[in-house]
Amino acid sequence: MALRNFDVEKYLKEGEQAYGKRAEIEELVDKLAKTDYENVVLLGIGGTWAEWYPVVEVAKYYSDLPIYLENAGEFLVKKNKRYVTGKSLVFTSSASGDTAEIVKAVKLCKEMDIPVYGFTKDDTTPLAKLLTDPVYNPCGDCEDSYLLYYFVILRLLFNRGEFPKYEAWADQMKGIHNNLLRIREEFEPRAARIAKTYSHEPYTMFTGSGVLWGETYLFTMCILEEMQWVRTKSVSSADFFHGPLELVDDRVPVFVIKGEDEYREMDERVERFVKQHTKKVEVFDTKDYALEGVDDEFRVICTPMIITAILTERLAAHYELNTGHSLEFRRYYRQFAY
Amino acid sequence: MALRNFDVEKYLKEGEQAYGKRAEIEELVDKLAKTDYENVVLLGIGGTWAEWYPVVEVAKYYSDLPIYLENAGEFLVKKNKRYVTGKSLVFTSSASGDTAEIVKAVKLCKEMDIPVYGFTKDDTTPLAKLLTDPVYNPCGDCEDSYLLYYFVILRLLFNRGEFPKYEAWADQMKGIHNNLLRIREEFEPRAARIAKTYSHEPYTMFTGSGVLWGETYLFTMCILEEMQWVRTKSVSSADFFHGPLELVDDRVPVFVIKGEDEYREMDERVERFVKQHTKKVEVFDTKDYALEGVDDEFRVICTPMIITAILTERLAAHYELNTGHSLEFRRYYRQFAY
Repeated sequence: MALRNFDVEKYLKEGEQAYGKRAEIEELVDKLAKTDYENVVLLGIGGTWAEWYPVVEVAKYYSDLPIYLENAGEFLVKKNKRYVTGKSLVFTSSASGDTAEIVKAVKLCKEMDIPVYGFTKDDTTPLAKLLTDPVYNPCGDCEDSYLLYYFVILRLLFNRGEFPKYEAWADQMKGIHNNLLRIREEFEPRAARIAKTYSHEPYTMFTGSGVLWGETYLFTMCILEEMQWVRTKSVSSADFFHGPLELVDDRVPVFVIKGEDEYREMDERVERFVKQHTKKVEVFDTKDYALEGVDDEFRVICTPMIITAILTERLAAHYELNTGHSLEFRRYYRQFAY
Repeated sequence: MALRNFDVEKYLKEGEQAYGKRAEIEELVDKLAKTDYENVVLLGIGGTWAEWYPVVEVAKYYSDLPIYLENAGEFLVKKNKRYVTGKSLVFTSSASGDTAEIVKAVKLCKEMDIPVYGFTKDDTTPLAKLLTDPVYNPCGDCEDSYLLYYFVILRLLFNRGEFPKYEAWADQMKGIHNNLLRIREEFEPRAARIAKTYSHEPYTMFTGSGVLWGETYLFTMCILEEMQWVRTKSVSSADFFHGPLELVDDRVPVFVIKGEDEYREMDERVERFVKQHTKKVEVFDTKDYALEGVDDEFRVICTPMIITAILTERLAAHYELNTGHSLEFRRYYRQFAY
């Protein structure tokens, strides 16, 4: 089955470009690792916040280094910036380079004499002019964001002796795009079927946890709500049992995202429950997808890439086909000042 | 207007009982403050997680002490418990005393030789048998939970010299229930009108931030979803602009919760936006309610109590009247093992 609205050649080429940033990022991080930093601060909002999320979760498995994921909008109005100091390594990202909260937050850091590192599409964006040693990533696929963010944080942990297998992992990531292309192809018929079945539902619930919570949050909020005007509820697998479960019956579709980290048993608990109480269940289990050439111990790191490939990218393309609502169309977001 | 299903005498008597725990809590905290603790860990899930949330937010204004709010379900499966050590002061709460995740999490702490302090309704509950120096709070009003949790954390900060006005604040809390009773009476006609207007809406969006985020989360998930089977979306004021805004038009009611902390300007931004894009807006601004006998500088501390009084308690009572769905009825939650 051909992938709807998907340019394979362009995808692989952009993936190669993103991977090509590895040496530049490693050089930057190796330099920063030699400073007397005390913590790491990641500035994101909306989609970028959600994309940094799993990187922080993964880092916790390997390190006790304090890593703070800050919502850039909240950071701006917080009176006490607490742990954001001259001894913080601050990273951010905005492909467009003009996300208002990110640009303002980086300006604020600079006023505090704190350099900010990170990513934007090229040297013409407002963010490019504010970043120290900016890394340019022209393409916006979420899996490339994950790849680049992991290069940053896992390389930092490598420098601390906490992720000694960094080189093996990073070498294996050369083949990640081919894996994610094959996974897309495997998922495509299911994407078509799910979108046809559920895209007109008035309300859809999503559950996820741990390393995959960011992607659960991102897909519901930034894709279905923002780009499709589809109403959703996302809730963590743990909290599902403290309220949202009561809504579940055959009128409510529940999309269960299952990961491979320590929280998996909570995802499984949700799956068992919803399978008994609604006919409308879809389970997205990263374990169903092989990652050729990737060691098992690195699979958890890659699980957000799998979910972003099948949901945020492929399922979105098929929702668009069924709703007739262009993924490009917005009525408010970035259309005027608010 | 008489308050629907509300026993004024019982409310004030239970409020007095809750306040009556002050000395016992202070004595316990004064003792704990003398230990060589390094951080504070709060175990909650669902409603209790949401109730501890503002206490943590408020503490940040006064102190850099690390305070971690842990989801008890996630704490159980986390392999690396990180900051939960013998040098943690751990508190929890479960009125019923048999919330599965809380009971298991406290057992786990005890296995790690970490005592857990906190609240349950009386000495007969499973939690009572696990807590060290348990404090019994027989009534379950959310404002009393806030009051007791604040006694714990603000007293701890007082011991650290970081909240020197503790005695003044705690003395003023003697009158909080009378304030919250008057606020209920002021809000009652509006509760009746809002519930009549919106209780049959297929989907309602809620925004909130900072000190009031916990209450926003609690009201949507634990009251409307769990107790009324009303579908909701709660989103922080900052994130509203990164997806959910696109859903807003005259078909979507948006309930904007406005607080008095540093995030207020983000709530105001949401208010301005939604007033232009849907006719169905309700703003709940804590500033509209006087707190007699409470210093202005303590108002932020009390704002979750105001929102819980008007929404979680009063608006819920009027939703029930209009949906005909008893607030006591559950089809799944705690009805069988899952």
